[in-house]
Amino acid sequence: MNARTVTLLDVAQAAGVSKSTVSDALQGSGRVAPATRDHVREVAARLGYRPNSAARRLRSARTGAIGLHLPQTATRLDYYMKLAFGAVARAQEEGLDVVLLAPAGGTHGPLASRVDGMLVIDPETGDAAVPALLDAGVPVVTGERYLGPAPDPVGAVVCDNAASLTALLDHVHDRGARRPALLAPADTSAWAAALHTTAENWGRDHALPVARHTVSFAATAREAEEATAALLAADPDIDAVVCAPDGAAPGVLRAATALGRTPGRDLLVASCVDGAATRGSSPAITAVDFRPADYGRVCVELLCDILAGRTGPETVRRHGWTLETRASTLGTD
Amino acid sequence: MNARTVTLLDVAQAAGVSKSTVSDALQGSGRVAPATRDHVREVAARLGYRPNSAARRLRSARTGAIGLHLPQTATRLDYYMKLAFGAVARAQEEGLDVVLLAPAGGTHGPLASRVDGMLVIDPETGDAAVPALLDAGVPVVTGERYLGPAPDPVGAVVCDNAASLTALLDHVHDRGARRPALLAPADTSAWAAALHTTAENWGRDHALPVARHTVSFAATAREAEEATAALLAADPDIDAVVCAPDGAAPGVLRAATALGRTPGRDLLVASCVDGAATRGSSPAITAVDFRPADYGRVCVELLCDILAGRTGPETVRRHGWTLETRASTLGTD
Repeated sequence: MNARTVTLLDVAQAAGVSKSTVSDALQGSGRVAPATRDHVREVAARLGYRPNSAARRLRSARTGAIGLHLPQTATRLDYYMKLAFGAVARAQEEGLDVVLLAPAGGTHGPLASRVDGMLVIDPETGDAAVPALLDAGVPVVTGERYLGPAPDPVGAVVCDNAASLTALLDHVHDRGARRPALLAPADTSAWAAALHTTAENWGRDHALPVARHTVSFAATAREAEEATAALLAADPDIDAVVCAPDGAAPGVLRAATALGRTPGRDLLVASCVDGAATRGSSPAITAVDFRPADYGRVCVELLCDILAGRTGPETVRRHGWTLETRASTLGTD
Repeated sequence: MNARTVTLLDVAQAAGVSKSTVSDALQGSGRVAPATRDHVREVAARLGYRPNSAARRLRSARTGAIGLHLPQTATRLDYYMKLAFGAVARAQEEGLDVVLLAPAGGTHGPLASRVDGMLVIDPETGDAAVPALLDAGVPVVTGERYLGPAPDPVGAVVCDNAASLTALLDHVHDRGARRPALLAPADTSAWAAALHTTAENWGRDHALPVARHTVSFAATAREAEEATAALLAADPDIDAVVCAPDGAAPGVLRAATALGRTPGRDLLVASCVDGAATRGSSPAITAVDFRPADYGRVCVELLCDILAGRTGPETVRRHGWTLETRASTLGTD
């Protein structure tokens, strides 16, 4: 390897482009057509070109990285792992690294000198790390809005949580449920707040009040099992349980079975978040799929657009969802 | 904030230490006692000292970051999420960021200019990204050894997978099992290879051959359910199933129940990896706890020791484990 002798000019000559095109292509600045960028990167890799990263960063005043903050409870939820790797894949296309930030906050140096921008996913008002992240002096994109006081400029990618819960409640209503219940976290996040408001509105509109039971943001299947047992003991007429937290809905199935109910027949079960737990349970559980890897990609895309000045800092984009109906509400197996 | 006017000298004077101690403390070089380091960092934070990170990195020829490569299947397994955040927490103590690398490999620039070192966790011989990572020109610590050809210098943190599976098999044997079976991935990783060898040795030593069935590295509960159904159909005398992949063991419970068996009584069930799925299932499943967050910490620690020259590059450290016995083998509920 004679990597140290290969210069930017060598790469430019071999690739048949200008030095600034090489620089832009390697830095993923977005000013270069994808085909050109790929060509330049191939040539640079073939020649063994190794830019002095620290020097390059100093010149461009960019760190080449974006930070990713996930909820403290993320360690148990494959939803956030999928989101993180979606973000990593999209960031790689832009020539950016993704730095995983410590969920508990605290930091070993100023964030603004380490990352060009940050993604703060599902910020909860109870998360003490969030205010400092939003005030770190770099552009931030939140996944769902932050309900606490937040300084601009902050972009957001939001899901229509009112529409998706309405679709779930309409679906169990279509399947015959007349006494639905909702297991949802307290409203310290935009997502949970939307679930509570939507359940209340849907109940009023249909003259069928939705029984609500508060569970933790990252409730376990065990917690959902206990909550369901309590709900059904208090009101045996409940004929559908919609469980909000990722991964917890199998606990609803277990509680139902233990009480002699048959999920999908005399108790409909659905989840507000799709994942391995809902797809792999028996019966499989109807759920809202937010395609978390795509969600991560879209968040990075918005952050890059803001960093490159392609869109304003207060941009809000919507991310779609689909309702996946399965045996837990369809009664088939 | 008049952050721009605070110099390294200001911090040194306020903290009552030399400039080089401040520099070492802020860079986490390990030459400073923990108490001094914490004191200096507190003073720096209080004064609002903000080093020019890019300039600092240029001077120290360090990027201030380490890379983390997880198996491509990691997106479904909370084990790796816990490990990742353990690594992030420990890296933060050393003043290092953790860059999440794209599992599929490929990269937007030379890794050596972006990270000081890398963690490559549970490298499989089938993972096409691994050889390039091991040959990127920076120190690498693997979590478990890599079975393919690997250039030195590479350190490793390994678990005694032979001892932990032996403990699991001894435990179900103590509980009366005489025809145990193992669901394990093909031997493309050090972990899986150890499981196969250990099962064979244990079977020979006890004159009780262990039935083995191959499942995928990140088998779902559904896959384990189907594998268990096939195993029990082929050999109804099987009285214990040890399931290797994280999160899959609840599928063993479902298959057993569907066949009229009672987990914990006439079929003992255990998992080679503890996690939310084994703790939260009903009955709870006996499992080996590798404390993945600690495992991530220990990997970072070894990498930092190698980077700082405190230990040689070929260092191998062992990480402990505990056997968590639960209702699925104890028969209680």
